[in-house]
Amino acid sequence: MSADNLTALLYKAKDLRLVQTPIPEINDDEVLLRMDSVGICGSDVHYWQSGQCGHFVLNEPMIMGHEASGVVAKIGAKVKNVQVGDRVAIEPGVPCRYCEFCKTGRYHLCPDILFCATPPVHGNLVRYYKHAADFCYKLPDHVSMEEGALLEPLSVAIHACRKGGVTGGQTVLVLGAGPIGLLIMLTAKSMGATKVLITDVFQSRLDFAKKLGADHTLLVKKDSNEAELVVKIHELLGGHPDVSFDASGAQATVRLSLLATKSGGVAVLVGMGAVEQTVPLAGALAREVDIRGIFRYVNEYPIALSMVSSGKINVKPLVTHHFSMEETLEAYEVARQGAGIKVMIHLQPRDSNNPQKFIS
Amino acid sequence: MSADNLTALLYKAKDLRLVQTPIPEINDDEVLLRMDSVGICGSDVHYWQSGQCGHFVLNEPMIMGHEASGVVAKIGAKVKNVQVGDRVAIEPGVPCRYCEFCKTGRYHLCPDILFCATPPVHGNLVRYYKHAADFCYKLPDHVSMEEGALLEPLSVAIHACRKGGVTGGQTVLVLGAGPIGLLIMLTAKSMGATKVLITDVFQSRLDFAKKLGADHTLLVKKDSNEAELVVKIHELLGGHPDVSFDASGAQATVRLSLLATKSGGVAVLVGMGAVEQTVPLAGALAREVDIRGIFRYVNEYPIALSMVSSGKINVKPLVTHHFSMEETLEAYEVARQGAGIKVMIHLQPRDSNNPQKFIS
Amino acid sequence: MSADNLTALLYKAKDLRLVQTPIPEINDDEVLLRMDSVGICGSDVHYWQSGQCGHFVLNEPMIMGHEASGVVAKIGAKVKNVQVGDRVAIEPGVPCRYCEFCKTGRYHLCPDILFCATPPVHGNLVRYYKHAADFCYKLPDHVSMEEGALLEPLSVAIHACRKGGVTGGQTVLVLGAGPIGLLIMLTAKSMGATKVLITDVFQSRLDFAKKLGADHTLLVKKDSNEAELVVKIHELLGGHPDVSFDASGAQATVRLSLLATKSGGVAVLVGMGAVEQTVPLAGALAREVDIRGIFRYVNEYPIALSMVSSGKINVKPLVTHHFSMEETLEAYEVARQGAGIKVMIHLQPRDSNNPQKFIS
Amino acid sequence: MSADNLTALLYKAKDLRLVQTPIPEINDDEVLLRMDSVGICGSDVHYWQSGQCGHFVLNEPMIMGHEASGVVAKIGAKVKNVQVGDRVAIEPGVPCRYCEFCKTGRYHLCPDILFCATPPVHGNLVRYYKHAADFCYKLPDHVSMEEGALLEPLSVAIHACRKGGVTGGQTVLVLGAGPIGLLIMLTAKSMGATKVLITDVFQSRLDFAKKLGADHTLLVKKDSNEAELVVKIHELLGGHPDVSFDASGAQATVRLSLLATKSGGVAVLVGMGAVEQTVPLAGALAREVDIRGIFRYVNEYPIALSMVSSGKINVKPLVTHHFSMEETLEAYEVARQGAGIKVMIHLQPRDSNNPQKFIS
Repeated sequence: MSADNLTALLYKAKDLRLVQTPIPEINDDEVLLRMDSVGICGSDVHYWQSGQCGHFVLNEPMIMGHEASGVVAKIGAKVKNVQVGDRVAIEPGVPCRYCEFCKTGRYHLCPDILFCATPPVHGNLVRYYKHAADFCYKLPDHVSMEEGALLEPLSVAIHACRKGGVTGGQTVLVLGAGPIGLLIMLTAKSMGATKVLITDVFQSRLDFAKKLGADHTLLVKKDSNEAELVVKIHELLGGHPDVSFDASGAQATVRLSLLATKSGGVAVLVGMGAVEQTVPLAGALAREVDIRGIFRYVNEYPIALSMVSSGKINVKPLVTHHFSMEETLEAYEVARQGAGIKVMIHLQPRDSNNPQKFIS
Repeated sequence: MSADNLTALLYKAKDLRLVQTPIPEINDDEVLLRMDSVGICGSDVHYWQSGQCGHFVLNEPMIMGHEASGVVAKIGAKVKNVQVGDRVAIEPGVPCRYCEFCKTGRYHLCPDILFCATPPVHGNLVRYYKHAADFCYKLPDHVSMEEGALLEPLSVAIHACRKGGVTGGQTVLVLGAGPIGLLIMLTAKSMGATKVLITDVFQSRLDFAKKLGADHTLLVKKDSNEAELVVKIHELLGGHPDVSFDASGAQATVRLSLLATKSGGVAVLVGMGAVEQTVPLAGALAREVDIRGIFRYVNEYPIALSMVSSGKINVKPLVTHHFSMEETLEAYEVARQGAGIKVMIHLQPRDSNNPQKFIS
Repeated sequence: MSADNLTALLYKAKDLRLVQTPIPEINDDEVLLRMDSVGICGSDVHYWQSGQCGHFVLNEPMIMGHEASGVVAKIGAKVKNVQVGDRVAIEPGVPCRYCEFCKTGRYHLCPDILFCATPPVHGNLVRYYKHAADFCYKLPDHVSMEEGALLEPLSVAIHACRKGGVTGGQTVLVLGAGPIGLLIMLTAKSMGATKVLITDVFQSRLDFAKKLGADHTLLVKKDSNEAELVVKIHELLGGHPDVSFDASGAQATVRLSLLATKSGGVAVLVGMGAVEQTVPLAGALAREVDIRGIFRYVNEYPIALSMVSSGKINVKPLVTHHFSMEETLEAYEVARQGAGIKVMIHLQPRDSNNPQKFIS
Repeated sequence: MSADNLTALLYKAKDLRLVQTPIPEINDDEVLLRMDSVGICGSDVHYWQSGQCGHFVLNEPMIMGHEASGVVAKIGAKVKNVQVGDRVAIEPGVPCRYCEFCKTGRYHLCPDILFCATPPVHGNLVRYYKHAADFCYKLPDHVSMEEGALLEPLSVAIHACRKGGVTGGQTVLVLGAGPIGLLIMLTAKSMGATKVLITDVFQSRLDFAKKLGADHTLLVKKDSNEAELVVKIHELLGGHPDVSFDASGAQATVRLSLLATKSGGVAVLVGMGAVEQTVPLAGALAREVDIRGIFRYVNEYPIALSMVSSGKINVKPLVTHHFSMEETLEAYEVARQGAGIKVMIHLQPRDSNNPQKFIS
């Protein structure tokens, strides 16, 4: 095994460096992974720029990266689900396995979960990384390492759609056409939603959404009239959406989701918004619109892999930028500017671990 | 049939009068009822004092009353579920039976529902009142007419508990010890909740709640520190509540319910609050606390009757004041002052229709 | 309106005749329909051949037909959802709207439901037919009358998939590749199932299923070894099916569904089987395989229309035979022989009511 | 620690002996327990008499016992939830924590679960026994060791009621008045069921059930007419049961549950019946009666403790016989004869670990 263990370490806000760190030792139920592809998420940019995200604060240097895939380099004595050489997607959170939340199938709410690149837990934007074997999922040959990394945001989208109860024949509103909004749109359609309207403040994102399969798009402006937007949404959809997703976190879109959703429907608030928000709660609740939040995902990685592997969801078009690990800072800067959709960092020579090569 | 049809008619805000109106004709699927007991609800007081409640506005004179029981005086040609002389509880909302909401078992969300004493629909605080027969429920002999009237607020409580998914072994927080809060407490316990904490701003209400069976009570003051209250709630319950109910509608209690509920739990917001509220939404949603509102009830009258009839829930202690119909204005004034819990108006000589007489 | 009202009347077993009957008068909430397309269902053939189906017995002459579409010829005074000239799909069961089942959103279980061509209720294989307006669904221009008729079996399939809880990423087993089995396969895939295996005793049906999109097929023979079939199913699916559907009703397939389904999964028994069946119940139940039956459909017509209209499900290939109404007996004979998949009877000159003409 | 480690070891069918075995060593996440009370279950008697139960077969000597409570004697390095001296109830199954079933909150279906006294896993009818700490639940002072042991069958009953969806206002049928049937009756009532009818073939059991709170009882005989029994059940309950529980496993009661349950209701089959059963499946499924099995319990121990601790369910009357560990064979013989309800074996001087002594 190479002694090189190049690591993307965030020392403090705006101080991300590539350094060498020791290759970790593994336990009996763990694997050592030679990392391949790591995507950049909005939260990564938050930590990098401000040293915090939501109520999580960076107090000591932390390795970045949590949307990732790698190749198994070594396995612990008890590991059975993967073998050395297997290409795997990595579910980045490993829970305690003992608490009430773990036992009731809601391990994402485990208070002791160790989640990559959420302070103080290190992430996997590093050449060699160890992980619980059972949270690694073997990729079939025809699924690329990039797709493996994208199972992470896709799992968020699937969790959102499952929480929203999306099913056949439904009308869906998605507020925000960033990576999560787009993946929610794709997931909702793959689960049978027959009409999806997606909104954004940038026409370029809506054009992209349209290409991906959005039935309707709506450009929203900062000074758009709220009541008029609601009417417009209902007109475009030919009715009220059964489920709406706020994939933005802005107070304006949270408000829209509460106002536009059908009576008895569900508003899923996916975006991480401000701590305090002023919202028209009473009206939504009196129409029995359920308001549901989501936190990451739980038991959705296998579903995400199945959806990608079967071709039901095509996540490839979302990767708009590619960088080598040595270009990590440049990659983060591109992600910060928000020019494209998803920025992917390759820790190995690009496409080297994909048996079925592709040109993109 | 007597020609007397004394009617409590609200002409406009603060103008409630007892007048005579014509006895209505019935259709084939309707019954004519000789009304017996009618309780006063918070919404009744709102209409009386301000001419509106929520977004419903009084534009023309309206008969008051919707928490009611009566005796069947006449039945339509197609009526089979009740007979003349039957003592019945009256579910006050009659839906269209044709729309999507009616067909999917959510008739309470039917946009064309006719609901007693919600403008412009007349209520049943009147000697003779006609109603859809299938929304009248025959009372067994041992259930009193007063209990029949109380099935209305009890149905609200049952709907809230069903929406909250209350089941065996749960820990429950109820914010507000008015009639609805108390009934939610009783219902939650009857469905298996093992610890119920109820809060209020009046110690007298908490004392009453304690007598009714509250496991814990907590006096809340206008200037109570929010974070300290949350800690106190968790201490008293020995953990976080699985389900919390806001039965007040105040922004302060809505906030408490969001902050105190267990991760992955449910906050049911029952109280009708201000249109716009500033709430710590993001924190609750990131802990996957579902926020659910309720609107009246649906298919819960039969359950309410079964719970009262079987003795599982004893609603009798909630009636603290009795008035004859001729004393209606005095009754409304007592309700407005909020001295007791539930004020009951008797349209017939009190207790005359109860086969098993009681002294209270 | 033409005085011709040609009617397919089943007098008794094996005595189906084309006769003239009076054109019916409509009520305020009804429409008169000029019928267009009526498919033949297995139950129709049962009634025709034996005078009964399940516990329903033909005691007096009955008009056949319940998979149907038509054009609105006249509307009642209160009808608002459709207009004269609208092309509509007809949901064939009209419930009482008053009972517990109707109020709880399960109108398909209403004991007083009037369901086309279920004795003693007349069906709609007749030139002019009246129906409750709210159970008629307007077809968009691009949806053909044949597709409108096929919403009936598609609704059965959607009901089955909803009862089975089919959702994204699931593995599904369908036993029987007749019209219902095929539609379940299509529906399951449209709701996100990633692997569907379908079985049948005829290779020709499996070839058809494969063309329609089945991921795997398995030919089953009368003398196939049960345990070996279970192993084969698990091999083909790469695991145990989350949900299995028996779309045959034979004891052998009911048994297979119980044996093959994953622990904690669901076996949906769609086929109408023998009254008494000998099944390995204990094993399935000890693995917590839920066993669910279905009866027709409820609230699924709008979903079916949405799925067809959006292109998510293509039902057109299922129609393998076309007949004019005058050829009804020939059509029934073809259906009886089971040569094709779905036999369609056209009461109007074929394709005359489709704005977008098609050649098939 | 005493060197005495008296052990009830089942060598083979009908060969149960009291012998000495070594006191086990514990791991970091385990506790060593000084056992106190162990109840005898029907499955224990099966293993003793026949060397097997269902598809589990005894191939080597196995320590008996799985309905148990004990006192913590030693704790592993990582244990935090209990302390030495704590009195605990022991959930007897410890799952792998890694598989799909464990992660989705259905650890009872984990194929690698180690469950006390299910071959080849040893049970806890032994002086000193080690167990995973997180599957030990601390008993409050007022809950006795006997009650702690009874949490095991109570958890089965709670699991059955949760699977059946028992909630407020429901009508429930319980077939079989053994320990599980009685506990289901008590649990159903504690969760809001308003009418419970219980049946048995012994009048003495029905008398006992009546004392415990059954609303109705019905004596069933081997030669009772099935159809008449169904009518009788509906008469006694004043309608069809929303949920029925077979707590017997006999084909006759499985049949009754399918025939008697309300359309759209649930039949929970709790009893372990014959591998093959001949049942009227089609009729039940065509009425959309869901058929659900249960396997032990999952996440129900905390609920069971809460129900007992709060006084909602009183399990004490079920213990009809007490024996010391030295009298184990006599105790098993009494259990085999089925004279009482629940036989309890005391490994410590009876009542010695109960802070609040009781006389029974």
